[in-house]
Amino acid sequence: MPAAKADFQAWMGGVQARMENVLARLLPAASIAPARLHEAMRYATLEGGKRVRPLLAFAAGEVSGAARERVEIAAAAVEMIHAYSLVHDDMPCMDDDVLRRGKPTVHVQYDQATALLVGDALQSLAFQLLSEHPLADQPRLQLEMVKTLAAAAGSRGMAGGQHIDLDATGKTLGLPELELMHIHKTGAMIRAAVLLGLFCGRFSEAERQKLDKYAKAIGLAFQVVDDVLDYDASTATLGKTAGKDSRQGKATYVSLIGLPRARELAEELRAQAQAALADLGRPARRLSELADFIVLRKF
Amino acid sequence: MPAAKADFQAWMGGVQARMENVLARLLPAASIAPARLHEAMRYATLEGGKRVRPLLAFAAGEVSGAARERVEIAAAAVEMIHAYSLVHDDMPCMDDDVLRRGKPTVHVQYDQATALLVGDALQSLAFQLLSEHPLADQPRLQLEMVKTLAAAAGSRGMAGGQHIDLDATGKTLGLPELELMHIHKTGAMIRAAVLLGLFCGRFSEAERQKLDKYAKAIGLAFQVVDDVLDYDASTATLGKTAGKDSRQGKATYVSLIGLPRARELAEELRAQAQAALADLGRPARRLSELADFIVLRKF
Repeated sequence: MPAAKADFQAWMGGVQARMENVLARLLPAASIAPARLHEAMRYATLEGGKRVRPLLAFAAGEVSGAARERVEIAAAAVEMIHAYSLVHDDMPCMDDDVLRRGKPTVHVQYDQATALLVGDALQSLAFQLLSEHPLADQPRLQLEMVKTLAAAAGSRGMAGGQHIDLDATGKTLGLPELELMHIHKTGAMIRAAVLLGLFCGRFSEAERQKLDKYAKAIGLAFQVVDDVLDYDASTATLGKTAGKDSRQGKATYVSLIGLPRARELAEELRAQAQAALADLGRPARRLSELADFIVLRKF
Repeated sequence: MPAAKADFQAWMGGVQARMENVLARLLPAASIAPARLHEAMRYATLEGGKRVRPLLAFAAGEVSGAARERVEIAAAAVEMIHAYSLVHDDMPCMDDDVLRRGKPTVHVQYDQATALLVGDALQSLAFQLLSEHPLADQPRLQLEMVKTLAAAAGSRGMAGGQHIDLDATGKTLGLPELELMHIHKTGAMIRAAVLLGLFCGRFSEAERQKLDKYAKAIGLAFQVVDDVLDYDASTATLGKTAGKDSRQGKATYVSLIGLPRARELAEELRAQAQAALADLGRPARRLSELADFIVLRKF
């Protein structure tokens, strides 16, 4: 393995391990009442996923020289919003999935009412974390962090994207509509992760704009690659029912523009993301490595 | 009608009308994409209820001389959290109610997935509102407003209370457990409404503590009275299926301590609330009137 790649993987593993500890510390203990709800919140959040959003927050924090203790909290808030969205998205009235990352989904492991409340309470906890710890040099900037996350999670962001997705089932979606859906559904929270990481430190308006461009490109790339992986992958390697989107007749990048063009598009978006980082030098190297990782990943 | 009562009712009617306008303005228009989600968010929030929490926020704002424009936003945020909780609480996996305030519940009028997302997006919007408008003299105090609402809504507050309620079905709950449930389920958000209204203006630590005491008493009184009303009322007057809690074998104040003692308890809590306001004089008169209104209300 090349040294640069080994270095990146060590960094990534370090952030992932740290996030596991941070989330375990910030989630209410399963011994605290209401115990079953807290246990289910921990089940939904811990030992899960690649922590892509926290990785992006930490990488962006390197651009602004942010203190690790701040980025940890901001990243945990973003990850809790993400975790809540998965719990609700898996419920029978939504995607009706029984497996997530190889484990029974929350409503299967517990019950639907608990899954509903786990999601609701994780969302509240995210905003509690963003407001009860000192995270930015100015309280006013920290309020902007709250606003950024709230807007990214809400009806003009992630939740809105979920609804566009629902409405799209059975319809013939065009490429602009598909893009609109993904900008809401995935892109908004990816962008929030990057900006929140940046906001934990000191930065110029130019840096903020560059990271915003980076985040928009990488957010879309993330979804294009997901569609490609979903098309390719088997249930065993993804830990969820692969190919499900296309079987339900939902539009994907692959179904709309074909596999070769979807791969090309992911590559173009990766190039856009890298271009946005061009002048930022070494502090942006983790963001640059993550752009490659997100597009070239093999699970 | 006595002059004082007419004055209070005019004030209450004014706040209710204003809140309808404020909520209508702060909710995304039904013409904005995703249109059906936004329409459902408006359906869930507008033309609904007595706006008890906004009334408490406005009344508390009078104690701190808060600007109306600030209290409106804070009250709207609290009301959106309340509205989301009703939408989720009515869903089939929770209380499975088909009527709310005489109208079909959101999952009946739309569908379950939309109801789920309406609740999720209303919660996000509440925190967006609290962070994007200037609401307190200091940004640091405004962060405390975010924290107060998030904690009140989360697993140690309202969502936790819902889960305690779920777990209690079919069990024999004692009075301490019933009280614990209500402190979480209703009391936390009542308290948040009072504190957020206060935080919009200038106040002393002593005033804060008095209003906190007031809010705790009134939050519990609210639930005791609800149990009494639920026992008494017919479906027609409440607009929901009356007597449902007791039919499902859930513990209520009436089932645990009997109707006369429940009425006495409500009266004791009202006296506690009034005692907490004793030194605050005329600025606290709306809070005082609301304590009477909450305990003595007849719908």
